[in-house]
Amino acid sequence: MSDEFVVKSDPELWEKLGMDVARFSGMPPMLTNAYRNIFLSQQNRPERMAYFDDMVANIHTGRIQEIYDAKEGGKPVIGTFCVYVPEELVVAAGGICIGLCGGAQGSIADAEKILPRNICPMVKSAFGFKVGKICPYFQVVDLVYGETTCDAKKKTWELLDRYVPTHVMEIPQMKRERDKRLWVEEVKDFKVAVDRITGNETDFEAVAGGIRTINAKRAALQRLNALRHHTPSPISGRDMLIIQQIAFYDEPVRFTEKVHELCDELEKRVQDGVAIAPKETPRILVSGTPMALPNWKLHYIIESAGAVVVNEESCIGTRYYKDLIDEGAADMDQQLERLTERYMKIDCSCFTPNDDRIDQVIREFEASGAEGIIDYCLQFCHTYNIEAVKLREACEARGIPFMAIETDYSPDDMGQLQTRVEAFIEQIKG
Amino acid sequence: MSDEFVVKSDPELWEKLGMDVARFSGMPPMLTNAYRNIFLSQQNRPERMAYFDDMVANIHTGRIQEIYDAKEGGKPVIGTFCVYVPEELVVAAGGICIGLCGGAQGSIADAEKILPRNICPMVKSAFGFKVGKICPYFQVVDLVYGETTCDAKKKTWELLDRYVPTHVMEIPQMKRERDKRLWVEEVKDFKVAVDRITGNETDFEAVAGGIRTINAKRAALQRLNALRHHTPSPISGRDMLIIQQIAFYDEPVRFTEKVHELCDELEKRVQDGVAIAPKETPRILVSGTPMALPNWKLHYIIESAGAVVVNEESCIGTRYYKDLIDEGAADMDQQLERLTERYMKIDCSCFTPNDDRIDQVIREFEASGAEGIIDYCLQFCHTYNIEAVKLREACEARGIPFMAIETDYSPDDMGQLQTRVEAFIEQIKG
Repeated sequence: MSDEFVVKSDPELWEKLGMDVARFSGMPPMLTNAYRNIFLSQQNRPERMAYFDDMVANIHTGRIQEIYDAKEGGKPVIGTFCVYVPEELVVAAGGICIGLCGGAQGSIADAEKILPRNICPMVKSAFGFKVGKICPYFQVVDLVYGETTCDAKKKTWELLDRYVPTHVMEIPQMKRERDKRLWVEEVKDFKVAVDRITGNETDFEAVAGGIRTINAKRAALQRLNALRHHTPSPISGRDMLIIQQIAFYDEPVRFTEKVHELCDELEKRVQDGVAIAPKETPRILVSGTPMALPNWKLHYIIESAGAVVVNEESCIGTRYYKDLIDEGAADMDQQLERLTERYMKIDCSCFTPNDDRIDQVIREFEASGAEGIIDYCLQFCHTYNIEAVKLREACEARGIPFMAIETDYSPDDMGQLQTRVEAFIEQIKG
Repeated sequence: MSDEFVVKSDPELWEKLGMDVARFSGMPPMLTNAYRNIFLSQQNRPERMAYFDDMVANIHTGRIQEIYDAKEGGKPVIGTFCVYVPEELVVAAGGICIGLCGGAQGSIADAEKILPRNICPMVKSAFGFKVGKICPYFQVVDLVYGETTCDAKKKTWELLDRYVPTHVMEIPQMKRERDKRLWVEEVKDFKVAVDRITGNETDFEAVAGGIRTINAKRAALQRLNALRHHTPSPISGRDMLIIQQIAFYDEPVRFTEKVHELCDELEKRVQDGVAIAPKETPRILVSGTPMALPNWKLHYIIESAGAVVVNEESCIGTRYYKDLIDEGAADMDQQLERLTERYMKIDCSCFTPNDDRIDQVIREFEASGAEGIIDYCLQFCHTYNIEAVKLREACEARGIPFMAIETDYSPDDMGQLQTRVEAFIEQIKG
């Protein structure tokens, strides 16, 4: 099966999107190789992973074609960089919302021609994808909607706006009543920006539909993550990571269905005692900053070292789906307020104080049957980096093995990370 | 005169403040040395600098004693880290407001025992001063009032609160009507926190008095900076920097008087053609991040290389005093609203968009008769670092020589900076 897997190419479609086709054509073969090595080399994967493998094979073609067709049909296509921008309202308008965070080293040099080097690799990678015209998703969007959740992103949007229309949602830095009032207004502005593309104001029923669709998607991911918590795990951390990454670009109704089909299979696996690794395999919870496609570096290191990742406390992880929106609103004002209340529960380190997150990590540690926590901090991400001080203390107080790493997308520190991760796993086994 | 200058010691007072006296006692001699070398070695300084030299000599003793006595007398003493926290309201309550930003390498190792290394040296220095108990100002305050103007500060306050009561003012990230509404509420909270210390609510007249006092101080600094802009400059950049640093800990009425006395002398110097350096001396505007006491590194390098610094577009610089508060309010609500409006004019890079700042730098460049801009970015300060992209473009468009540097408090890069600054000055002389 591994040899059959190929990430597809469609230079004609890419040309239509204004991409740098010559340069981009090297990307699918690279991705093919990496995916075969990291994912398809695993033994005893669930059969229902086939759909998600296929989503990767079609990442630059089939899915782009779907989005392109939708856009041609007048549907809004919005790019975002953060789980705080409410995709429910895009879906309500019949549109498509795509997570544009960048997880590749290959676009960073493009970014560094303009941006400082000393900032987050995710921001640089995303910016570089646009500047270099080497991401079909960036090319297909009507506009992008950034936010103010960190210093580097907030200021980068001012420059990104030169390449693609970039709106910004102000996310407050505290969670009091006055912050909520501001936040609700930001959500309303977002709705206006989305509706402007279709020329129609989405009504109460449409918003209710968008909320139901995304609630269902998040609920499916909750079910999947709960199944994965079983000891021994019926699915690898790598496969869980790719599914959570695909959640940011797949069509949500289809994705939800496919996640449930996989869950059915995993339930059977659990009943039959089929696991991805023996039950004595050390179990790691990864907390911290998000891992955008194709950033599989840490999971690959951890699982190659003989452990299994059993939870991602991350934006590409539980922060994305742990909370649902109350569907009982009576009118649109209430609807948008309840939507905002759900978003206010997301415990990003950009808030102060944010101690709920520490409690949440510990809860997820307990629920997942993890035996140690590796806190993953993208380089120069000050908020998660400083918050790791409190997380370490919470772990030490409970005797939970804890290790914090700060890294970027470069392969340069792979050897050093391998050594540290292996020592950490030995400590857990000890 | 240089040999007479000594930064004074008062171990008994420091003991009362709970300082690490043994360790701190090395500080005054170090400061004495540095001040003699950097400041007192200058030729032909204005005579009225004697007051400011004296403020430095008493920085750890006489001024601390004044603040200590005020506190013993029930006056609120508040430490701040940012020009967004309104000192007018502290003065209105009869209290003392002190800028606690740290500018010394010596306290950074203390901070790095707890905080990540990859963050701003100013934040680490300030935090380290408190943790190490080696700053009398940190020891004498009732409480500190932080804000949310950058990721590193925002998250550090959560940890600082363990060592000294730390309140946080949420500064919004945009400047629209909804942001102003939130901001006014934050200002009101600050007033409540200050008034709680005295047990009395400051009234309209008291607030009006606080506003008049600080307006007068800012106006005096405006007058001084305008005189300094004369070609050739009647005062050095170093001396201007120390005065602007002293503005953050001196008693404001006395300070204002002394600044005006110096201005009178500078006016006479200008009339008499007395200058700190010949008129052909290259003139540099420094823009960017603040230089907290005793951070004199860049000014020393620039002026040792044969140029003169003629303007600081910085929080310890024009951002602190370029705007005054409208004194015509009819009641306290209006008063606090006008106060907030003044604070909203400060053009910190934490705002998005912040293009007014670019225009302001260019205006100050023109007003100061500068011939080149050196943009100073504290290491890992993402917002100023990214905003420098726009500033560079604005300079290039106008043919203004521009150089951006990113540095910390360590002496390690002194040689490299000297070389770059010398080359930049040669380019200006061109």
